[in-house]
Amino acid sequence: MHRKSSVSPQRIPKALSKLNGLNVDALLFLDIKNVRYLTGFTGSDGALLVGKRQKLLMVDGRYTNQARREVHGVEIFQYRDKIEGIESVVSDNSLKSVGFESAAMNVTTFLKLKKKLKSVKLTPMAHEIDAIRAVKDKTEIAHIRKAGEIASDSLRVLCDYIKPGVTEKDIAVELDYRMARNEAEQVSFSTIVASGVNSSQPHAAPGSRKIRNGDIVMIDYGAVYHGYHSDETCTFIVGRADKKQKEVYSLVKEAHDRAFAAVKAGASCKEIDRIARTCIESKDMGKYFTHGTGHGVGLDVHEAPRIADKSEHILEAGMVVTIEPGVYIPDLWGIRIEDMVLVKKNGFEVLTKVPKDLTILQ
Amino acid sequence: MHRKSSVSPQRIPKALSKLNGLNVDALLFLDIKNVRYLTGFTGSDGALLVGKRQKLLMVDGRYTNQARREVHGVEIFQYRDKIEGIESVVSDNSLKSVGFESAAMNVTTFLKLKKKLKSVKLTPMAHEIDAIRAVKDKTEIAHIRKAGEIASDSLRVLCDYIKPGVTEKDIAVELDYRMARNEAEQVSFSTIVASGVNSSQPHAAPGSRKIRNGDIVMIDYGAVYHGYHSDETCTFIVGRADKKQKEVYSLVKEAHDRAFAAVKAGASCKEIDRIARTCIESKDMGKYFTHGTGHGVGLDVHEAPRIADKSEHILEAGMVVTIEPGVYIPDLWGIRIEDMVLVKKNGFEVLTKVPKDLTILQ
Repeated sequence: MHRKSSVSPQRIPKALSKLNGLNVDALLFLDIKNVRYLTGFTGSDGALLVGKRQKLLMVDGRYTNQARREVHGVEIFQYRDKIEGIESVVSDNSLKSVGFESAAMNVTTFLKLKKKLKSVKLTPMAHEIDAIRAVKDKTEIAHIRKAGEIASDSLRVLCDYIKPGVTEKDIAVELDYRMARNEAEQVSFSTIVASGVNSSQPHAAPGSRKIRNGDIVMIDYGAVYHGYHSDETCTFIVGRADKKQKEVYSLVKEAHDRAFAAVKAGASCKEIDRIARTCIESKDMGKYFTHGTGHGVGLDVHEAPRIADKSEHILEAGMVVTIEPGVYIPDLWGIRIEDMVLVKKNGFEVLTKVPKDLTILQ
Repeated sequence: MHRKSSVSPQRIPKALSKLNGLNVDALLFLDIKNVRYLTGFTGSDGALLVGKRQKLLMVDGRYTNQARREVHGVEIFQYRDKIEGIESVVSDNSLKSVGFESAAMNVTTFLKLKKKLKSVKLTPMAHEIDAIRAVKDKTEIAHIRKAGEIASDSLRVLCDYIKPGVTEKDIAVELDYRMARNEAEQVSFSTIVASGVNSSQPHAAPGSRKIRNGDIVMIDYGAVYHGYHSDETCTFIVGRADKKQKEVYSLVKEAHDRAFAAVKAGASCKEIDRIARTCIESKDMGKYFTHGTGHGVGLDVHEAPRIADKSEHILEAGMVVTIEPGVYIPDLWGIRIEDMVLVKKNGFEVLTKVPKDLTILQ
């Protein structure tokens, strides 16, 4: 009986085709998310060697049974020590040149491996594999869509809880709990709940500050489903909003909407960033928009493509990216509005579901 | 006014003294936990350069204000790009040789840095700094003790919830929630709840399996407090225990107790592992004890020293380590009993508080 793998068998040849120029006998994948993407293996440690004649997943004894269960069409090799495992696989297969993921190998490992494999040419590959996971297939999109729903549904039912007197930490704890109860495997990253002046830091950790009337409450959060992440930021105002809050919210929302309107296959990521930035600069607030406009989301919460001023990426149908302009006024407060979208041939589908019009929580 | 740093100013000179043999102008710390340990900086990215005349914490714009608030007696340097930041600090200080944490630098970064700093000798340091955090000071011990209490208190009140019909995932979600409500900053690692046959895998992820009468339920979990972790494993039996479960539990408990009895300053980690292993081998179950006996716990949940058959570490007063023998019978079930202890001059203090006698949950 042939068991069906959870991943398409096309992923490995497709990844290899991007690497043709490297001219090596085999490729060594070390980023565990890439290993998962290419094989379906969900363990936390391992390495994948793909050559002209070999497809070998190397794991330690903890993961041998799991790898056999999860991975099909790829040989499983068990090691005691990872470096020794790589060495013996490379030697046994008489490989003379191996490309490796240089961003996923540390220098200690590299120096040991070089010493053990003296006659093998080790070729670092970094940007070549940067974007192999950027375009998602149907299964991946379904998982990301579900992750987005889990997260958004959890925050929506929590809105009544966000009121004067509760702390940032309380909100984060309750939100994480609801996501977990709603089938999230884990949270995408440590949930950010930043209120009042704390929201002037783009990535403040939730603390003991109590919500007050008139506060901005910025919540950046996500859920993981089948390994796939969601990412969304909602900025609410509690009780009443002042004039400046309304003005800046409306500006950030406009930047968000304009950038959105440019999202479709073929659009340049640099240009989308430029659109959001120009909008915010038009009100002299460019200096307060201190980060990129967005990023890809998938097995990692931050992955290719980047939507930023120096990005060379072009959007393709099937990419999933965030659009997240923000304005952070030092010592006052900040506003960020972030949605996650699926890029389509002629537009996009929004995968995060909390409405982004100015919401004043009563 | 001189603001008090949250970390002892002795940590940097103490770390440097371990590295005297390296003969370099300065040391570059990249492991963010080591950076936190040495400076008090709690951000997620940065680098620390310590030379004869320099103490420089390098961070990006997200973290400049936070670094100024948290760190004292160390200059703060803001970079846009980390590699460029390191380059300019090394160049501006005319350093000719720099030791760097090779386990915390990836090969992509290393190759870029080597190219930019052609006339500088970059010396990898790996094992030299392996154990700089192993001996904890009073503040650290207080944080770890509190982390252990948060976790143990949370599981104790959850015992009534563990009964036939609830799933592994339900238990993990409720436990994580209680830890968070009990002041945990986060969980030490993804909580393991493995029931029945799933417990035969040392590190199973909690799933949809429902607890049944007669099940073993193995829970490996921990809380983080002020950055410091706890680590504890409780193995319960639900409803009724059979003869073999009782026998193996009693064997693992004996291995745990014997290893404990050997814990004190001056004891060899290898010897403690040997004691636990010999006990389990005496009943012909050595092949089912597939991992080391323990590890240090602190800013990382796994850190030096290792308590394993090839460990060269010697226990010192102030180290915090786990003792966690286990027996995993393939396709049947597994039992692990883990406590976290503070090593003292003539013995130890247990920092995890759930009683480890055989507990049958009704």
